[in-house]
Amino acid sequence: MTVQTPVRPDPDSLAPEALVEHLARDGRAAQRVLARLADEEKAAALKAAAEALRAAEAEILAANAQDMAAGEEKGLSAALLDRLRLDAGRLASIAAAVDQVATLPDPVGEVISRAERPNGLRLSRVRIPIGLIGIIYESRPNVTADAAALCLRSGNAVLLRGGSEALHSNRAIRAAFARGLESVGVPAAAIQLVPTQDRAVVGAMLSAAGLIDMIVPRGGKSLVARVQADARVPVLAHLDGICHTYVHAAADGDMARRLTLNAKMRRTGICGAMETLLLDTQFPESASVVAGLLDAGCELRGDARARALDPRILAASAEDWDTEYLDSVLSVAVVDGLDAALEHIAAHSSHHTDAIVTEDAAAAERFLAEVDSAIVMVNASSQFADGGEFGLGAEIGIATGRLHARGPVALEGLTTYKWLVRGSGQARP
Amino acid sequence: MTVQTPVRPDPDSLAPEALVEHLARDGRAAQRVLARLADEEKAAALKAAAEALRAAEAEILAANAQDMAAGEEKGLSAALLDRLRLDAGRLASIAAAVDQVATLPDPVGEVISRAERPNGLRLSRVRIPIGLIGIIYESRPNVTADAAALCLRSGNAVLLRGGSEALHSNRAIRAAFARGLESVGVPAAAIQLVPTQDRAVVGAMLSAAGLIDMIVPRGGKSLVARVQADARVPVLAHLDGICHTYVHAAADGDMARRLTLNAKMRRTGICGAMETLLLDTQFPESASVVAGLLDAGCELRGDARARALDPRILAASAEDWDTEYLDSVLSVAVVDGLDAALEHIAAHSSHHTDAIVTEDAAAAERFLAEVDSAIVMVNASSQFADGGEFGLGAEIGIATGRLHARGPVALEGLTTYKWLVRGSGQARP
Repeated sequence: MTVQTPVRPDPDSLAPEALVEHLARDGRAAQRVLARLADEEKAAALKAAAEALRAAEAEILAANAQDMAAGEEKGLSAALLDRLRLDAGRLASIAAAVDQVATLPDPVGEVISRAERPNGLRLSRVRIPIGLIGIIYESRPNVTADAAALCLRSGNAVLLRGGSEALHSNRAIRAAFARGLESVGVPAAAIQLVPTQDRAVVGAMLSAAGLIDMIVPRGGKSLVARVQADARVPVLAHLDGICHTYVHAAADGDMARRLTLNAKMRRTGICGAMETLLLDTQFPESASVVAGLLDAGCELRGDARARALDPRILAASAEDWDTEYLDSVLSVAVVDGLDAALEHIAAHSSHHTDAIVTEDAAAAERFLAEVDSAIVMVNASSQFADGGEFGLGAEIGIATGRLHARGPVALEGLTTYKWLVRGSGQARP
Repeated sequence: MTVQTPVRPDPDSLAPEALVEHLARDGRAAQRVLARLADEEKAAALKAAAEALRAAEAEILAANAQDMAAGEEKGLSAALLDRLRLDAGRLASIAAAVDQVATLPDPVGEVISRAERPNGLRLSRVRIPIGLIGIIYESRPNVTADAAALCLRSGNAVLLRGGSEALHSNRAIRAAFARGLESVGVPAAAIQLVPTQDRAVVGAMLSAAGLIDMIVPRGGKSLVARVQADARVPVLAHLDGICHTYVHAAADGDMARRLTLNAKMRRTGICGAMETLLLDTQFPESASVVAGLLDAGCELRGDARARALDPRILAASAEDWDTEYLDSVLSVAVVDGLDAALEHIAAHSSHHTDAIVTEDAAAAERFLAEVDSAIVMVNASSQFADGGEFGLGAEIGIATGRLHARGPVALEGLTTYKWLVRGSGQARP
């Protein structure tokens, strides 16, 4: 069967703004179709997309080999090449993740609140998709499928702009995903990939208020900072994860040792990793807590009182209290009680995740109430800051802004609502 | 008793950015106190503020007389002068509105969701205040007290920037309100008024990301457009209220006449007023619906088929379908059924409020599902688009954006949430 492609403008001939407008109009038209699909239809479309990804294994791995060869020639670091690399196992995981998103409950249509007014008007607030979501990301090709799956599950169209290193991989993944959607009658424009690597297109996406409804940056700090600084479109993101763990006077010593070690050293490169340890001056086992971290290979940078605990602790500079190391490095301060800990956190937290270790319920509740971060924890490792660990199934990202959605953002965060008013002829007096 | 005022920088000597930073830091410090107040304490503070407004009647009316005299000298229009004018009755209403907000339920602390994970972690999402809200408004002095009351009820501090015509009135109202707060131990900086009329301060507020958490513009279209175009801080607003009423083939004729007349003519200057009437070609009583509007003094501008209904209907231009008249003017189109009505609304609605009149339940449900506006109504006047009418008590504004809050925004829209995680020593595997 020959598929006739309608005559369309050549994307390379369009200026960045015109290209984004063109893609956004196609995406918005597709989204109006998505918005009307039932739960089962969206689930079936995702299952078809997962199947199409598996069927396109040869094509996707060949495209990835092209990216890998170009990346090696360009001298990309081993870490970057590893992120870029696909193999049969990794592709199977990507397809399985799409299948998994299909099983998550559909948030669209949920009635958030209902009321009946004295005049008989019946009001309800109902969840609906946001619309067209822009995803701007670096060289991980799995984001192409992951982000598309979450957007589609919640009835949103997606406009993807991935890193140039992964262009061929992303195109092949997008093409397979779209074929899967089309096989069950869902428009391919529900998932679009920016077809050029012109960096001006990112600027045009960030300025496309009214065309793109929300942008989610996925990548390192410089990418997020640029998106946050330049966007006229609402952005869901976190810039830093400067996460604190405060070991209170009444902490259990063994728990403090286990949780600080896990919060810092389980994986040092994730945003929920502890970056500053606050030790209460009244906590009697501080020396063994810092020794545990030092013995595990962590570099500690402390204030004067922390350094007195162990000669291996280096001197912290003022910047250390505002640094996200994402490495085996930790800043450590000794604080005079809960108020001082709260003060330090208010001054230095990036409002991502902060935790207290304590057996004192009153101190725990004050910490939960007064720390103004997206996630506040008692007696748990800050590395639990994750949509999967929170039972949300998968996350599009973690947000530290104050509006719309905070903390791990999953399907519900990809929805908004409208008010429905059912009357029987009421005119307003 | 003499109150010692601490030495503070003279606001007139600060550059706009420095002034906004200075005010925002004071406001944020006050907000940390507000965030810890119990429901009853916030209610008591508002009652004290209302009482202080009543006690300051002479002072406020004298300040208002100054503004009125200056406004008359400047040649302000009668409508503007009427908005600016206070008298004993209007001031009593302002104070009563503050008392009323005190009786509204406090949204802060509400548990939005709870879950327990298989590993024993107990999660909850709890409503918290947003932080510091900026209000940029025109010459209605009542906004000073109304907006402050809603922000304080929900634990937010407020930074007010009112129109220059109302400067003395706003200062007097703010001073009385703050005295009320201080009388019960709440910091006066919870409600601050920008002390200069330098227009560059508005620009500095709009750029103050991280210092001001959300901005609500209250005023005409040019104010809202400027705020939306320039803000780096999230904005809650609506630019236009291009509200449609679609009279379906199966509408009740009498209801259609009553609702269209009410939706257009009850008050023509509010954002929920109907601006476009869509008449189904199969609806048999269209002529009497348009006659009712014409007889009530409304100017009608129609397409060719609408003009055939009544010779008094003028010809609509292309711009009429995208115009918010806020006057006794209405555009009218005849459409070929529900799909054509949905198409017209998708192309021209400002996503504020759109309504259908019909006795056909299936058509009503399709309209509710497919119209993508903040408020969608069946068999009711679009003039019900109002926080008070929705039972929300009072509104800070109506939002047509897609994120955070849509439609009438009241106390809940002035809150966000955080995740609380209660563990018993869980480390992440």
